[in-house]
Amino acid sequence: MSLLDIDALDSIALGAAVLGAGGGGDPYLGKLMAAQAITDHGPVHLLRVDELPADAWCVAVGGMGAPTVAVEKLAGGGELIAALRALEERLGRSFTHLTSMEVGGINSMLPVVAAATTGLPLVDCDGMGRAFPELQMCTPTMFGIAASPMAVADDKGNVVVVSAVDNAWTERLARSATIDMGAVSYIALYAQTGAQVKESMIPDTLALAKRIGDAIVGARSTRNAPAAFVAAAGGGGVLFDGKVADLRRTTVAGFARGTVWLEGSGNDAGVRVEVHFQNENLIALRDTTVLASVPDLIVIVETDSGQPITTEELRYGNRVTLLALPCDPRWRTEAGLQLVGPRYFGFDVDYTPIEQLAARR
Amino acid sequence: MSLLDIDALDSIALGAAVLGAGGGGDPYLGKLMAAQAITDHGPVHLLRVDELPADAWCVAVGGMGAPTVAVEKLAGGGELIAALRALEERLGRSFTHLTSMEVGGINSMLPVVAAATTGLPLVDCDGMGRAFPELQMCTPTMFGIAASPMAVADDKGNVVVVSAVDNAWTERLARSATIDMGAVSYIALYAQTGAQVKESMIPDTLALAKRIGDAIVGARSTRNAPAAFVAAAGGGGVLFDGKVADLRRTTVAGFARGTVWLEGSGNDAGVRVEVHFQNENLIALRDTTVLASVPDLIVIVETDSGQPITTEELRYGNRVTLLALPCDPRWRTEAGLQLVGPRYFGFDVDYTPIEQLAARR
Repeated sequence: MSLLDIDALDSIALGAAVLGAGGGGDPYLGKLMAAQAITDHGPVHLLRVDELPADAWCVAVGGMGAPTVAVEKLAGGGELIAALRALEERLGRSFTHLTSMEVGGINSMLPVVAAATTGLPLVDCDGMGRAFPELQMCTPTMFGIAASPMAVADDKGNVVVVSAVDNAWTERLARSATIDMGAVSYIALYAQTGAQVKESMIPDTLALAKRIGDAIVGARSTRNAPAAFVAAAGGGGVLFDGKVADLRRTTVAGFARGTVWLEGSGNDAGVRVEVHFQNENLIALRDTTVLASVPDLIVIVETDSGQPITTEELRYGNRVTLLALPCDPRWRTEAGLQLVGPRYFGFDVDYTPIEQLAARR
Repeated sequence: MSLLDIDALDSIALGAAVLGAGGGGDPYLGKLMAAQAITDHGPVHLLRVDELPADAWCVAVGGMGAPTVAVEKLAGGGELIAALRALEERLGRSFTHLTSMEVGGINSMLPVVAAATTGLPLVDCDGMGRAFPELQMCTPTMFGIAASPMAVADDKGNVVVVSAVDNAWTERLARSATIDMGAVSYIALYAQTGAQVKESMIPDTLALAKRIGDAIVGARSTRNAPAAFVAAAGGGGVLFDGKVADLRRTTVAGFARGTVWLEGSGNDAGVRVEVHFQNENLIALRDTTVLASVPDLIVIVETDSGQPITTEELRYGNRVTLLALPCDPRWRTEAGLQLVGPRYFGFDVDYTPIEQLAARR
């Protein structure tokens, strides 16, 4: 057990933006909420998964919806606690520990807000090791852990509790409620025991986010930040340098969907790359050649600073570097690829790990 | 307290189809379910509102969605009980009595199914005195009774419990869940005490349905059935005789919306009348003259038999009689018209009671 204080938030938020793979919402806003909650209530007790008692009763908390809207509707934190309490009431039992379901983006920070506010310890793990657009895209789904009962709360005081037959139905019903609620909601889901968390969740992902964030900050003066954080992330590489040449982005059915076209510069001059996204970057293509695809992480950063750019922050003319980072190995299994492989998102290509794609080039 | 047995169902279902005002779904299917439930579990104990103890704990049960879909998805009844039990669990208390929220259409029969199955007594009352397309359009809304917490269940095993800030939000969130569930769901809502039921609900509406149904059956051989049931309903009158000349009907956002055009015959030869509906018939117009509008009941029946025709059963060429029946007087108050007056449904006309409209003609 360690204490998570305000000083650590900057690096975690920066690393979480990288792990957001273009989606997950800008963790900067979540960081402000987390800092306020820690100021008001004191630092958060952070456990490693191996410190978690087997009989702990854990729940993931966070936000749901289109990050393009999330940045305009900053939550006070009360909605998050309302979701947590509604789920406790539904289950007739108080939770002992909080987790994140998604370390990428703003959902790295919302569990910190909830932990500071409630005094519950936070377990350093998540169910994605990155961000994904749909809630069943969590490693617990592969281990038979139900996302529901799940509570969905909004800023007006509405709460919906979903009890669904599977995690895809939970996603569907919670998504509709989220759209009604103004395209953003606050959620509590994936209630499970400590023993189940140890098996189903990806450990040490807040520590990973902090390591990546620290690497970016440390390399800022070197003008080599992208390479530095690839090393900190434990693999992957730079795919492309260029600038944003065109951008198509719409909010559809509660998601930010679109495509960004990048025009190469330096060694990549004359080359054009397109990246398709649904909240998160899904696939990077050079003509018909796949440079990287889900479930691996596709990250667009400012070339100079290494600062990650979310899909809703992309602007024409941005000078950017495109990187890929390896996903958690569990996503590379058959069951993992069924949930989050390129075909799930409608791309008719087989998944190839970025290490193999890089070796071919 | 009396016993409601299978023999009474035919007349109630027929009268409930009249009170459905074109909507509410065909009670014939509900009647089959109710008959089966009574065969399996015995007759239903039916109370008058004045027999209800003040400390009774009552809940309305029924179905939600587009009747065009409901007729294709006959429920087994388990969904209804699932909704009831989910709401009991949410409220931490068992219900002592059941009510209907909507006597018009299939929702006259689903509470009978639930009462027979659970053994709970059914109170003879409802919250509309007819059918309306949205769940906040209930007299309890006018008396400050919350529709939520509300449970929404489907035939797959999904359950959503909505706790909303007002009844319009309950409608919105439950409607989205219903659409996800395949455009039909089974619901439990408007939990209230016996004392509240006595104030907020419309009494004796199952008895009214039975009286209307008996009148239609009794007048079948007379070829004067429409006039007979107008008398049984305690007011209103025949507006028009003709046949269905044209029909436009679509299922939009979980509702059956459209317009039917009627061409006059007999005394009405050469005259054309249009009726707009959203599940229920909302307004009947002759050119720009309003013949009748919500909240009064607009009913289309087969001219010969007096058999009511729901909006989903309308067919080109049907020989029909158009009637209007007066709504419960509470709907004619300012608060009532705000909930269910013609302007709520987008018609830019003031409401005039059918008695006054008839006097002008």
